[in-house]
Amino acid sequence: MLRYAMLFIFLFPGLGVAADEEHWLIQLDRWGNRSYQSLTLTTQGTNISGKLDGDNFVGKRNAKGMVLTVTDADKASYTYTATSSANGMQGTADFPDTNNPKARASHTFTARRLPDRPAGPARQYDFQPTDYSNEFSPHRSPVLTIWPGDTVKTKTIDSGGVDEHGVTKALYGNPQTGPFFISTAEPGDTLVIHLKRLRLNRDYADSLDSIVGRAMGPALAAKAESLGKSIRWKLDRERGLASPEKPSEGLRNLSLPVRPMLGGLAVAPGNGSPPVSTGDTGRSGGNMDFNEVIEGNTVYLTVQQPGALLYLGDAHALQGDGETSQYGLETSMDVEFTVDVIKGKSVNAPRVESPTQIMVLGQAGSLDDALRAATTGMVQWLQQDYGLSLSECAQILGSAIRFSVPNLAGRSVGVAAKLDKTVLVNLLRR
Amino acid sequence: MLRYAMLFIFLFPGLGVAADEEHWLIQLDRWGNRSYQSLTLTTQGTNISGKLDGDNFVGKRNAKGMVLTVTDADKASYTYTATSSANGMQGTADFPDTNNPKARASHTFTARRLPDRPAGPARQYDFQPTDYSNEFSPHRSPVLTIWPGDTVKTKTIDSGGVDEHGVTKALYGNPQTGPFFISTAEPGDTLVIHLKRLRLNRDYADSLDSIVGRAMGPALAAKAESLGKSIRWKLDRERGLASPEKPSEGLRNLSLPVRPMLGGLAVAPGNGSPPVSTGDTGRSGGNMDFNEVIEGNTVYLTVQQPGALLYLGDAHALQGDGETSQYGLETSMDVEFTVDVIKGKSVNAPRVESPTQIMVLGQAGSLDDALRAATTGMVQWLQQDYGLSLSECAQILGSAIRFSVPNLAGRSVGVAAKLDKTVLVNLLRR
Amino acid sequence: MLRYAMLFIFLFPGLGVAADEEHWLIQLDRWGNRSYQSLTLTTQGTNISGKLDGDNFVGKRNAKGMVLTVTDADKASYTYTATSSANGMQGTADFPDTNNPKARASHTFTARRLPDRPAGPARQYDFQPTDYSNEFSPHRSPVLTIWPGDTVKTKTIDSGGVDEHGVTKALYGNPQTGPFFISTAEPGDTLVIHLKRLRLNRDYADSLDSIVGRAMGPALAAKAESLGKSIRWKLDRERGLASPEKPSEGLRNLSLPVRPMLGGLAVAPGNGSPPVSTGDTGRSGGNMDFNEVIEGNTVYLTVQQPGALLYLGDAHALQGDGETSQYGLETSMDVEFTVDVIKGKSVNAPRVESPTQIMVLGQAGSLDDALRAATTGMVQWLQQDYGLSLSECAQILGSAIRFSVPNLAGRSVGVAAKLDKTVLVNLLRR
Amino acid sequence: MLRYAMLFIFLFPGLGVAADEEHWLIQLDRWGNRSYQSLTLTTQGTNISGKLDGDNFVGKRNAKGMVLTVTDADKASYTYTATSSANGMQGTADFPDTNNPKARASHTFTARRLPDRPAGPARQYDFQPTDYSNEFSPHRSPVLTIWPGDTVKTKTIDSGGVDEHGVTKALYGNPQTGPFFISTAEPGDTLVIHLKRLRLNRDYADSLDSIVGRAMGPALAAKAESLGKSIRWKLDRERGLASPEKPSEGLRNLSLPVRPMLGGLAVAPGNGSPPVSTGDTGRSGGNMDFNEVIEGNTVYLTVQQPGALLYLGDAHALQGDGETSQYGLETSMDVEFTVDVIKGKSVNAPRVESPTQIMVLGQAGSLDDALRAATTGMVQWLQQDYGLSLSECAQILGSAIRFSVPNLAGRSVGVAAKLDKTVLVNLLRR
Repeated sequence: MLRYAMLFIFLFPGLGVAADEEHWLIQLDRWGNRSYQSLTLTTQGTNISGKLDGDNFVGKRNAKGMVLTVTDADKASYTYTATSSANGMQGTADFPDTNNPKARASHTFTARRLPDRPAGPARQYDFQPTDYSNEFSPHRSPVLTIWPGDTVKTKTIDSGGVDEHGVTKALYGNPQTGPFFISTAEPGDTLVIHLKRLRLNRDYADSLDSIVGRAMGPALAAKAESLGKSIRWKLDRERGLASPEKPSEGLRNLSLPVRPMLGGLAVAPGNGSPPVSTGDTGRSGGNMDFNEVIEGNTVYLTVQQPGALLYLGDAHALQGDGETSQYGLETSMDVEFTVDVIKGKSVNAPRVESPTQIMVLGQAGSLDDALRAATTGMVQWLQQDYGLSLSECAQILGSAIRFSVPNLAGRSVGVAAKLDKTVLVNLLRR
Repeated sequence: MLRYAMLFIFLFPGLGVAADEEHWLIQLDRWGNRSYQSLTLTTQGTNISGKLDGDNFVGKRNAKGMVLTVTDADKASYTYTATSSANGMQGTADFPDTNNPKARASHTFTARRLPDRPAGPARQYDFQPTDYSNEFSPHRSPVLTIWPGDTVKTKTIDSGGVDEHGVTKALYGNPQTGPFFISTAEPGDTLVIHLKRLRLNRDYADSLDSIVGRAMGPALAAKAESLGKSIRWKLDRERGLASPEKPSEGLRNLSLPVRPMLGGLAVAPGNGSPPVSTGDTGRSGGNMDFNEVIEGNTVYLTVQQPGALLYLGDAHALQGDGETSQYGLETSMDVEFTVDVIKGKSVNAPRVESPTQIMVLGQAGSLDDALRAATTGMVQWLQQDYGLSLSECAQILGSAIRFSVPNLAGRSVGVAAKLDKTVLVNLLRR
Repeated sequence: MLRYAMLFIFLFPGLGVAADEEHWLIQLDRWGNRSYQSLTLTTQGTNISGKLDGDNFVGKRNAKGMVLTVTDADKASYTYTATSSANGMQGTADFPDTNNPKARASHTFTARRLPDRPAGPARQYDFQPTDYSNEFSPHRSPVLTIWPGDTVKTKTIDSGGVDEHGVTKALYGNPQTGPFFISTAEPGDTLVIHLKRLRLNRDYADSLDSIVGRAMGPALAAKAESLGKSIRWKLDRERGLASPEKPSEGLRNLSLPVRPMLGGLAVAPGNGSPPVSTGDTGRSGGNMDFNEVIEGNTVYLTVQQPGALLYLGDAHALQGDGETSQYGLETSMDVEFTVDVIKGKSVNAPRVESPTQIMVLGQAGSLDDALRAATTGMVQWLQQDYGLSLSECAQILGSAIRFSVPNLAGRSVGVAAKLDKTVLVNLLRR
Repeated sequence: MLRYAMLFIFLFPGLGVAADEEHWLIQLDRWGNRSYQSLTLTTQGTNISGKLDGDNFVGKRNAKGMVLTVTDADKASYTYTATSSANGMQGTADFPDTNNPKARASHTFTARRLPDRPAGPARQYDFQPTDYSNEFSPHRSPVLTIWPGDTVKTKTIDSGGVDEHGVTKALYGNPQTGPFFISTAEPGDTLVIHLKRLRLNRDYADSLDSIVGRAMGPALAAKAESLGKSIRWKLDRERGLASPEKPSEGLRNLSLPVRPMLGGLAVAPGNGSPPVSTGDTGRSGGNMDFNEVIEGNTVYLTVQQPGALLYLGDAHALQGDGETSQYGLETSMDVEFTVDVIKGKSVNAPRVESPTQIMVLGQAGSLDDALRAATTGMVQWLQQDYGLSLSECAQILGSAIRFSVPNLAGRSVGVAAKLDKTVLVNLLRR
């Protein structure tokens, strides 16, 4: 989070007497690094007040711009200056150098006003993507702005960039649909993604016959040099079955029920982090390759940027735990999801809720550390939602926790901690 | 395995003309270290022949003893000498020093003849233990000798040494019932343990409110100092439910279905290994704390000693994955099991088969290495029983493997690789 | 590496008859992703030929542009088109869709001609940075173009962005000086950085009294909540000593010799990778925090982009192994380095050579995996430079390898494998 | 530690009026498990008093035996009974069942009186071993009883059981010389072993050309199948050099200075633990394979049993970090050591002190956990001996700690944390 304050912005024309709350997105350039802030603004005559990334401000506004004085949590306050422009506002934030009392730091910014929520009930959007992102980036322009409760029907292409018609539409490496800007979502909130529908939309998937290095000891690795070939799987959408297109003798009768999932689901990383590769993961999702991100389940991710900036992609028709083949059964997908925002509550690791379980995904550079993160996340969940003490959490974990290992194929691996809802059903939800 | 040969043993009285196969257990003392060998013997007049730990021998026999000449896999052959005694035989094995062509190594041994299989069908034993072992030891005298197909009804006491009546009968630390000597089982075979029945036999279990260090990162550990208290659980045997006896407020409605399991199940370690603590694990089981070692499931362990020497104990009424409380719900148990032996086939990790899944337990000092062992074990299973190539195994794993983390509480941790039998049902079993 | 071919580029005015080799840098836009290629070109009349990222091409050139036909390693050849522009060239690369024989993929590109090497001997540059990069980015414009043999004198600011005068000049998070474009360096070559001089240029450094989570077990973590305070160290540049500015009682006599090092040293990541945070590491260096990156030592990094794009920063006056305080003694630094390029040879991990040792830095998500990478890198070094067989490498490692743990503070940790040059001195260098 | 009390022992003949302190070693049989206790006894008329494993007792004594009433730290007191025998005493310890207030637990014991310290200055022993132990066992009879300050000259044989003359004298697997009983050492004390002399006593060592699995990633493992051959090294004792006896071409000039070390050094494990394999390690040493256990250095191990029971063996003429060849340069050795005991102070991990460094060896199932143990041990050392706060420790670690990785070849791996004494020299030792 940024530590700024005192944002004086000269009012731009025609905005003088708005009594209602306005929402602005500020893009600040700190020594060449773009960062984003949420500005919520109320005007009374020429006086303005509101919040900038959670800190209070007061100021003045006229036809030419605004002036803001922000006071941060440490009671520090700073003065900045800006003017209105064709697309919104632009200006300069000027504040002391925290490393040197004699120096000052001055940064330019731009700001655009965010649209107000459309009147009426929650809406349903049909979004047909035309390009895709190979980064979970905070800098990419939103493809759609939506509000909590809204539903989006869209599509994802496969990890190789190939769409439902077999045509390459993006660079390989898990190109994502998005980002979707979810209005009202701010850093520290939790974004809720209900996966209403996740359906195959073509008749094949591509995989490998690999075993990832993390799944092999030296003895097995010594025999595995010939692995790594492409394997195409047929998808029988009517019967919901997958089978190798040209099976070798031993697998000629293999036929497995599909279980469509999204390998990639993320919100943009926070200020100070560069864009994240769509092959990588972080606190707020990413290429999780978690085979419980399926239709009917709900995912919870901590928002890191104003509007969250939700990305999704890398769907698999089917994937074992660990994605041990390096690829799942990679395919394109029809997706429908509804979003929600839990204000003022953040989660320390991605959460997934199914009709029967609650799950936390710990991700780290080793399984040992990933499991620690998963357990820590589950303890947080039990404390936040059920008001349990740490001793009570320990008793629940010891008698009922389940651990699985969804992902071994990335730089970070994933361990999921799971609890059956039957365990929790009699606990007093607080 | 030992590399001996040329075992001359003078025949003891009354054994001269046996035409049938005899089975002997040899205990060799190598510089103060006891090791065990299987001797299978056929007598024709004064000539004898047979196998010693898999190597062929020929020799002579008379009323006073025997003489054997064993030829090992490297074509080396050695000469040894022994005489009959009240309890069997005793003698000296004399062979070259492999480190020094000019020196010789001479070791004493004793031998006892193993009983022949009783006539008639497989038998059922009711074994009431009177003492218990705190080591998985190759040196402990068998409590019962049984044959493949036989069934044993017995009991285990809890990990603190307390029996079904609440009386301490053994030293804390997972004291085990056994060992059971399974005739015909030899090193390199697989022992099959069918768990026919596993039932609670008292109304309480003891646990802790701990979280093991392996499940906590630094942030959680910083808050966990007050944990570690004893928690007694009530067991409602009629309804099959467990609940804390004196629950704190948050858990006052907690009631969980029991799922009785054996935390400890092992065969004795092989020659050259000292006894293993009943708190530890190894290739052939141990304190696995695997919550799939339950009634109705079958366990496969590689035999390391003649007779396997099967131990069991440390039952839990219920245990989450990871045994994150350091203790499961520790209690005594009624146990009934049937044994079998698969000759000439060994498994590189403990296997468990349920009505619906096949499972391999990898155990190592980190989750990362334990998972490697589990995957390697599952690949071995698919190759041994389904004749799959490594490429075919990779495709099965990638689309269908499941990993869980049963054990975090011991020196080694456990990761289980699992496959649903529905995945395998159409494969050609070879 | 990219798989393109057939690059037709219409010649721009005045370039028609150059008989000498020209070097161009192509920036290709693949579905919104920028990637870079090296073009080496010779013109004979209207005919041109040369190499594009290692693949051969032939083509035509006139006043308006060029046309290239590239043949890749798989014998595939493709046709593209472009024209000259004010700053160089721009055009379109058009090639088949490898995922769909009926479809085609077309990408735009720009190209700029790289300067020829200045005449005369290797040069020495005095480069005073004015801005800094918080990403190891392939997209940032070079601050200076140099050639093998050239030397650069420059400065780095501290990890908090503060310069030698105590003024904040960049965003915290290890802002880097650079990138330097090293002409002739291409992906797959090795960049050699000789650190000629690394000297303190101010009188203080900042650190913490933290212990990183990876260095603490649960018991220690339980006592560590109060840690994390800022600690300022005085640097006595004359005597080369560091001591806490306001030491607590126990450290009041503590005074340690400084050992200036660069925490950050990297070349830009390859095509397909987004910019890397200056807090992170990869195959080609990064925030290695390796306390052997000191004056007098030489670093070897595999080039990933044309020109390598060398970044440096995050200097420490002193740092223990592991950077266990999360920060070293962070300070600004005067730096002087000379570069070299080893053509056609790449290294699988960063290497450092001191007057007395050769060292390889393995980096991964766990120490166990980082050590594997370090050993693998050392084996590669012994095989590449000394022609040793794997058996010979094993004997050298077993008798002489040294391992240290330079870095515990990042997402990846580092393990260094080291060999004394006295071990190698009698080996036949091949 | 045991929790017993009230040990009534009938006095045996002729011991009635001893006014001086007597020391006894009690061997208790708890349900078949042998454990050991220290009894320190003063007699005044028929009254006796003293300490049993640190707990106070009072009692009566006559010609036939003794009676003791012990009060433990929890104020519980118990009553036991015993009589004198030819070799000392024997009796029964009877105390309540802590698990069941209605039941009692009764155990037999024997006791032998320990000799008093010989008059005069510290003594020097020349001990020629005749047999060796393949277990670090608490149950093996001491080969020699010594006192703090005493010095022992002895020999170790190599890990294959071969002595200085090339004759096999014990079973392979690191057979150890010992145990030595160090009088006055009790559980919780620290045993200090000064390695005065460690010298080669034959002209060859045996090793392998292996690379242990923990040092290889999958790519290297895939090429390593041919490794594992025996390699004999010549030892030039006069010049102190080792070289392969039959070097392959690449190593024909290899010649390395020897650095004799003890791979095995341990005290017996405590009550409740079975004997430890001489291939394994634990809190109190074991097969540490730490290449700083050399002549001139001092090792500190926490005592776990009365008399400590010190074992040593598995010497290496030379060993790289990690013992990556699975074997060091295995050879026999002449050893001379002096012991000391630090009463009432224990160390949480093995410590080694050289003339220039202090070192702590962390051992665990992964390098990540071993490093945590090493750091924790170093923090303990700084707090115990230098009175530093945790914040001060953090500053020392961050600026000066060194980590090495001595051992990768065992079930547990080892990471050493090291500090130069120059760092500590100005700190106030408390």
